[in-house]
Amino acid sequence: MTETADTALVLDEGRTERDVTERRFTVDRPAEPVPGILWTPEGATGPRPLVLFGHGGTQGKRAVNILALARRMVRHHGFAAAAIDQPFHGDRRPDDERTMSVEERRERLGRRMFGRDRAAVVDQAVGDWTAVLDALQGLDDVGTAGPVGYWGLSMGSHFGVPFVAGEPRIAAAVLGLFGWSPTRGQEGLDDLARHVTVPVLFLVQWDDEIVARDSALQLFDLLGSADKTLHAHPGRHVEVPRDENDAAEAHFARHLSPGPTPAQGT
Amino acid sequence: MTETADTALVLDEGRTERDVTERRFTVDRPAEPVPGILWTPEGATGPRPLVLFGHGGTQGKRAVNILALARRMVRHHGFAAAAIDQPFHGDRRPDDERTMSVEERRERLGRRMFGRDRAAVVDQAVGDWTAVLDALQGLDDVGTAGPVGYWGLSMGSHFGVPFVAGEPRIAAAVLGLFGWSPTRGQEGLDDLARHVTVPVLFLVQWDDEIVARDSALQLFDLLGSADKTLHAHPGRHVEVPRDENDAAEAHFARHLSPGPTPAQGT
Repeated sequence: MTETADTALVLDEGRTERDVTERRFTVDRPAEPVPGILWTPEGATGPRPLVLFGHGGTQGKRAVNILALARRMVRHHGFAAAAIDQPFHGDRRPDDERTMSVEERRERLGRRMFGRDRAAVVDQAVGDWTAVLDALQGLDDVGTAGPVGYWGLSMGSHFGVPFVAGEPRIAAAVLGLFGWSPTRGQEGLDDLARHVTVPVLFLVQWDDEIVARDSALQLFDLLGSADKTLHAHPGRHVEVPRDENDAAEAHFARHLSPGPTPAQGT
Repeated sequence: MTETADTALVLDEGRTERDVTERRFTVDRPAEPVPGILWTPEGATGPRPLVLFGHGGTQGKRAVNILALARRMVRHHGFAAAAIDQPFHGDRRPDDERTMSVEERRERLGRRMFGRDRAAVVDQAVGDWTAVLDALQGLDDVGTAGPVGYWGLSMGSHFGVPFVAGEPRIAAAVLGLFGWSPTRGQEGLDDLARHVTVPVLFLVQWDDEIVARDSALQLFDLLGSADKTLHAHPGRHVEVPRDENDAAEAHFARHLSPGPTPAQGT
């Protein structure tokens, strides 16, 4: 175990698979420690771009789509990548939810995300991300010199829009499967959305049964970014085509890689 | 000049630049000959996939975006590519339009596309494409064995939606910058859109000053394709980002290339 001097970050020794080292960590926070995973190139030293991954509702830090894209950012681009268990998820799941069905958990999650505690839950989640980013940038093989990306769909955008809006270290984001719904207590979201000004790739599922299509299109419309791209596909909430990982990888590679953008082939 | 026996196709000898041979052709049609350009790999023999390019209003067969993407399909994938001057454009431009400003031409174009002659103009354009496809498939280095793609934005979709809807040889399409507007005499477009069932990449400019955003989203919604993707960007009608040529190239490569789809990297 490694404990850094000036943050409450604890890392395990990790394991390496196909040139990618995966280390579990925890970051101390007033309410409870935040567990996470850091992926880096094997034997990496020195600063590098970092992509943060915020999972969706009922998922956790090692969701299959996160694992696949995180490894690609490390293996193909030499970036660091990190995911955490967001509030009430993964290792932070309340005891009484461990025996619940996904449907029961979704119903409780909806009340938490859009009920009277909404602001407190968002504050907790955004504070977690800020603390985790502070801690990870204290590591030699992450550092503060590289730009930071944020990827989060659905609940990962519920927390990600306010996080990206207020965090100047974020230089690019992948968001989506989420919308603006004033009837669900999101009156402040339009202001937050306008404060998202980094390049954004925004995903919409055309037949989303959880997020109303118009609310997602409206959130895209409200984003303050001059460089924003909407990708929409037919299908339900969880049916994002796997090809979109290619687009996300290209988005982060283009906006976070050091050096000039390569010229486009003709 | 080469004239094939059973069609009224006339090709020039062409010129080759960076491995891509460009040949001008004309195809006889009752009203007037249709001029076009065929791009093929230098020295190619035998059948191959073909991508047809339908230019936008006031443009012509050698528009810069067509030229760039056509050459890429040939150079990177060994496909054939072809573009024609659609009715009233390029070498088919009426004499009295040669001295008109772009604004004057656009105004006349609008009356032609959406006025009382709309159906006749669409029939002419679709018939041109059918005749050109018949003729090109008679060539040894194009042939009938390969699948065919169609690329056309704006006016290229105005003619492309009915062409793709009724042409079984088309296996993939890139469409967009166009919408469904029942007030402009397009009552039949919803039926046509439902008959487009091939994989479609559909482009929307979020701040399009010519095509209403909702009309474009509605056309995407109506497309009958199970595999359809919408890409939207901020900006005006003619401000599609150059990166979208990458997406179009990948779309045609994925759906028209012979052999199995390569596995996705992780």
